[in-house]
Amino acid sequence: MYDCMIKVAINGYGTIGKRVADAVAAQKDMKVIGVSKTRPNAEAFVAKQRGFPLYIADISKKEAFEKAGLKVAGSVEDMCKAADVIVDATPGKIGATNKALYEKLGKKALWQGGEEHELAGFSFNSSCNYKDAIGRQFVRVVSCNTTGLCRIINEIDKEYGVNHVHAIMVRRGSDPGEIKKGPIDAIVLDPVSVPSHHGPDVLSVLPHISITTMAMIVPTTMMHMHAIQMTTKKPVTKERVIELINKHPRLGLIKKTAGLKSTAELKEFAMDLGRQRSDLWENCIFEDSIYANKNELCFFQAIHQEADVVVENVDAIRAMIGGEKDAAKSVAATNAALNFKTIQNNH
Amino acid sequence: MYDCMIKVAINGYGTIGKRVADAVAAQKDMKVIGVSKTRPNAEAFVAKQRGFPLYIADISKKEAFEKAGLKVAGSVEDMCKAADVIVDATPGKIGATNKALYEKLGKKALWQGGEEHELAGFSFNSSCNYKDAIGRQFVRVVSCNTTGLCRIINEIDKEYGVNHVHAIMVRRGSDPGEIKKGPIDAIVLDPVSVPSHHGPDVLSVLPHISITTMAMIVPTTMMHMHAIQMTTKKPVTKERVIELINKHPRLGLIKKTAGLKSTAELKEFAMDLGRQRSDLWENCIFEDSIYANKNELCFFQAIHQEADVVVENVDAIRAMIGGEKDAAKSVAATNAALNFKTIQNNH
Amino acid sequence: MYDCMIKVAINGYGTIGKRVADAVAAQKDMKVIGVSKTRPNAEAFVAKQRGFPLYIADISKKEAFEKAGLKVAGSVEDMCKAADVIVDATPGKIGATNKALYEKLGKKALWQGGEEHELAGFSFNSSCNYKDAIGRQFVRVVSCNTTGLCRIINEIDKEYGVNHVHAIMVRRGSDPGEIKKGPIDAIVLDPVSVPSHHGPDVLSVLPHISITTMAMIVPTTMMHMHAIQMTTKKPVTKERVIELINKHPRLGLIKKTAGLKSTAELKEFAMDLGRQRSDLWENCIFEDSIYANKNELCFFQAIHQEADVVVENVDAIRAMIGGEKDAAKSVAATNAALNFKTIQNNH
Amino acid sequence: MYDCMIKVAINGYGTIGKRVADAVAAQKDMKVIGVSKTRPNAEAFVAKQRGFPLYIADISKKEAFEKAGLKVAGSVEDMCKAADVIVDATPGKIGATNKALYEKLGKKALWQGGEEHELAGFSFNSSCNYKDAIGRQFVRVVSCNTTGLCRIINEIDKEYGVNHVHAIMVRRGSDPGEIKKGPIDAIVLDPVSVPSHHGPDVLSVLPHISITTMAMIVPTTMMHMHAIQMTTKKPVTKERVIELINKHPRLGLIKKTAGLKSTAELKEFAMDLGRQRSDLWENCIFEDSIYANKNELCFFQAIHQEADVVVENVDAIRAMIGGEKDAAKSVAATNAALNFKTIQNNH
Repeated sequence: MYDCMIKVAINGYGTIGKRVADAVAAQKDMKVIGVSKTRPNAEAFVAKQRGFPLYIADISKKEAFEKAGLKVAGSVEDMCKAADVIVDATPGKIGATNKALYEKLGKKALWQGGEEHELAGFSFNSSCNYKDAIGRQFVRVVSCNTTGLCRIINEIDKEYGVNHVHAIMVRRGSDPGEIKKGPIDAIVLDPVSVPSHHGPDVLSVLPHISITTMAMIVPTTMMHMHAIQMTTKKPVTKERVIELINKHPRLGLIKKTAGLKSTAELKEFAMDLGRQRSDLWENCIFEDSIYANKNELCFFQAIHQEADVVVENVDAIRAMIGGEKDAAKSVAATNAALNFKTIQNNH
Repeated sequence: MYDCMIKVAINGYGTIGKRVADAVAAQKDMKVIGVSKTRPNAEAFVAKQRGFPLYIADISKKEAFEKAGLKVAGSVEDMCKAADVIVDATPGKIGATNKALYEKLGKKALWQGGEEHELAGFSFNSSCNYKDAIGRQFVRVVSCNTTGLCRIINEIDKEYGVNHVHAIMVRRGSDPGEIKKGPIDAIVLDPVSVPSHHGPDVLSVLPHISITTMAMIVPTTMMHMHAIQMTTKKPVTKERVIELINKHPRLGLIKKTAGLKSTAELKEFAMDLGRQRSDLWENCIFEDSIYANKNELCFFQAIHQEADVVVENVDAIRAMIGGEKDAAKSVAATNAALNFKTIQNNH
Repeated sequence: MYDCMIKVAINGYGTIGKRVADAVAAQKDMKVIGVSKTRPNAEAFVAKQRGFPLYIADISKKEAFEKAGLKVAGSVEDMCKAADVIVDATPGKIGATNKALYEKLGKKALWQGGEEHELAGFSFNSSCNYKDAIGRQFVRVVSCNTTGLCRIINEIDKEYGVNHVHAIMVRRGSDPGEIKKGPIDAIVLDPVSVPSHHGPDVLSVLPHISITTMAMIVPTTMMHMHAIQMTTKKPVTKERVIELINKHPRLGLIKKTAGLKSTAELKEFAMDLGRQRSDLWENCIFEDSIYANKNELCFFQAIHQEADVVVENVDAIRAMIGGEKDAAKSVAATNAALNFKTIQNNH
Repeated sequence: MYDCMIKVAINGYGTIGKRVADAVAAQKDMKVIGVSKTRPNAEAFVAKQRGFPLYIADISKKEAFEKAGLKVAGSVEDMCKAADVIVDATPGKIGATNKALYEKLGKKALWQGGEEHELAGFSFNSSCNYKDAIGRQFVRVVSCNTTGLCRIINEIDKEYGVNHVHAIMVRRGSDPGEIKKGPIDAIVLDPVSVPSHHGPDVLSVLPHISITTMAMIVPTTMMHMHAIQMTTKKPVTKERVIELINKHPRLGLIKKTAGLKSTAELKEFAMDLGRQRSDLWENCIFEDSIYANKNELCFFQAIHQEADVVVENVDAIRAMIGGEKDAAKSVAATNAALNFKTIQNNH
């Protein structure tokens, strides 16, 4: 049994890495063989609590770790050697510098959306192109925002045909545990120019879609908010859109009855429901915002920046290793291991 | 000279009222004959500093004002009797309750956008329908967001013909001097449902426009940000849009050379330029965000919630009194008295 | 077994109520016989998920609840009748209006710190005066800030004798799930006058202490921060203070090795450790801030406003019912049922 | 007349530099001969509007400036050569690297509080040690927080004798125009350890004072808030403290009648009063917070981080050049030129 499990290394045990580690550890067909840290901080103690072997990039810091009571299992290279696949969750643009190591060791690796498409040569979303990832050495899981866009655009496109998407991303300024990044009292255009990179990034997964995106940053820590308009080839109805959402395993519907109207209330609800780390792995589409008028569809969706890609990473691992050829089965397995049912099933 | 001046009373000396008072006082053809307060707070001392006679709603509070060193000139009714026109800048929905008084006294009055269109029966924007306000007894100056939308939509519509507008309003949570209102760390859909009231409100000024609006609130105090997409009947070019902005007296262009990308930097720039109260009376359209692709036009514009309607109030007074029949001349007079040239002239 | 359990009703299933309900449900000697809601919102669905019978204050709203899929077990009075003790966690000042009902039914009840001391006639902290609560009908559990102050002041006073305490409370503006309260960009003196109510409130538990408190509110949602100075009768040493903290079951020590320097990082750590709702039931004293210089002791402690009183409520119930006469045993039982060991044991 | 004026160069035209430039330009005995910028951004256009000659650190960027329509007068070294005294307002720790240039040119220079005391060998506050600065080549104007502490501590010490000061600084996270710095939703201990650097820094001006300081950062942009306790040799009365404040030219009193209880309301009041850039050059002590109980004095004071050192810089220039030997006369001249009367004179 043990030997059949996919051996996963997590290079970078931060916001995304620690979540992917827990999600991998929960899967029946995977195990975490190690995680890496650069400094002996609070997250390193969390890895210790979880029982994940701790590897460090700079082995000269071994003493500092061990002084703090943290056992060091070896170097990052040691960790990678022992793995079947490496999840690179290092900070944006650092991941690219690790590629040479993965190539040298002949290991499979996947990066996050902070890296360029070209680094891996393939951008992944389990709802859109799981099959194309089967057996690949390198995969890039697209960013949280692109993941959220791809899931819903693909679903609407399959049903109605999408003429054009106009999507505004109102992004959180920092993650809850960050204290250096702002802004404190500003709406920041990021970038000022239109389109933002999100539109082109959607094309890395869904190349035939016409889309214009605009993005800004606001002083919040919890979830991005997307204001989306799609014009479609066929007329849209609200009822059918709700059906499409309800039958998709990663599209959540915030029902009107819950009375939720903000990112904060939504995170509180996820916390109260007992979701691990209050994570929302699904798109959170507000039922009451769905507006269908002939060939125009508008809605708001909240995207948990720390969480929605976590389940995608798990599916990507499964596709790359090749043990599961069917996207729906992988998604179902990933979700089940996390006891994840979309949020409309809780209210 | 004195007798020819329009006698203006400001009912409600708060965020908008204090600004309108200063703007009126700066005009050559107007004077402030009084302002009203309900409590003897800091703003009452500002009125005293300016030399505006202070009237109070509840005359039984006269002693409390005078104890604080604030001379009371009389009741609000006394103030209204002495005026040619009353600017009602009381909090939203309170203004409606004052209508009976204005009718009883047979006075002209104008309200702010927090009141319903039906209260005045006419919704005003000096760039769109100045002439229709001439001689009216009652006028409603539309809200800051609607003012910002009307100015630019009308301009693009006249040049290209607008098929449809998709506008997202990312609104500040409170004004800088407010301390009770939040949110602190949330993006709040306000309302959740689509369209928000802004779309219908634009129709109160520009009834033929097709528009879908979506609105949210974020934890900032400075300026709303609009992410706007328009589809047009004729193809659009960025150069021509910039020309249209530059020749309009209330459309500002934030040039790329200034390097500004946020509401906070923009307010700092207005402060440094010496604008009174750092006010931005114009739409602030970011040059680098203007995206013209065939019949699609997108851009970001920042709207100073405390300021853009101030100049509209002054024009509305002039139209209602009937001394100036030409919109462009009123706008030019209002701007000149405030030494207001659109911000692109400062960088 | 079932019949021996203390039957607890939670009147007010909000921020505090929902936490007390979970903590009570985890105890071996207690059970939740019902919780009350006024509106069928998201928290009502949480109660449903937990299996807590749902009671409502206004029975005429029964249909609204049931339409939303929420079964109503009866009225608040029905709930109270069935209980041995009622935890009143309704909003501040509302709790007082419920006293007549509890008296009419002859039930034991405990209120939160938002109510006046006089309402219950006894203010409770399990580290300071557990024994005095044994058998009482009415108890007030002091507020989160007072709880945090009492725990540490009492400990230092027992060891060194406290001459005077100067404590500054920098308070969070709203809880994470609230969206209406601010401020957004202000430090608010609350109150402006010195001392704040916290000093006198400490005296309701520790009447012999000399203390001056000052309080302000800032735009954060996570934890209050106390900056404390105590002057003592005997000289203080840092080492001994750390020992006192480490042996107390409700005083946490944030060790220097963890590298935490903010409320946000601390909450992230609690989340990562798997604490339910990321709750920190203990005072969180920063080791590196402890400054002992002769008879002066200074330090920072973070207090989780949603959590520290939760365990106090459980102890108070046990004292009031009288099943456990020993404070230390009750505290140990409460902590063990929650799998709560102070945070210094995790790093 | 012209030749008698002190020729001042402003090296670093940012938050502090631009304010000092305007304050210097307003003085009868000083003139701004140039300001320096590193990049052609919005502030450079402000310098142009003011008519300040623009010098640049890296002359190779001249073309970039001139393309943006900004005339370059020369290099920073050119500017320094032409000056009698240089105000170094470059970012913290950068100023130190400029010392060699000032020494080479044999020029007088003054730095801000972000530099170490040792760089200049003398730390300045016009209320405490003006005379000691007369004729010096190098001076360091202490930081905004230290300036605010020194002004009031010295005053209380002269009247009552100070035994010990316990001061907590709740600091703004970023200036209003900054967009990169946080935190967004955290109280950050900065530093965690006690005392913070502010205590020792006060000693650089008032070496005989006993003081313990603690500091934190919160997500606001407007003003620091100090919660201060002093124990004194003689008993204190509130009435006398108010008198001491009222007769000091740089101590402001926020009277109870104004109803202000926050930094935000205070900044709004300064803005409404027409203060340039809404600046508060004085300590803002809240009358209602002054608590005198025998030998204990407590109060809150707000300190405008962008402004209080501006007037100190002007006085320091005057002392260094030696034209005015009397501190009170320099302070009076500086204040008068800015039309600055402490805020209690406006309400």
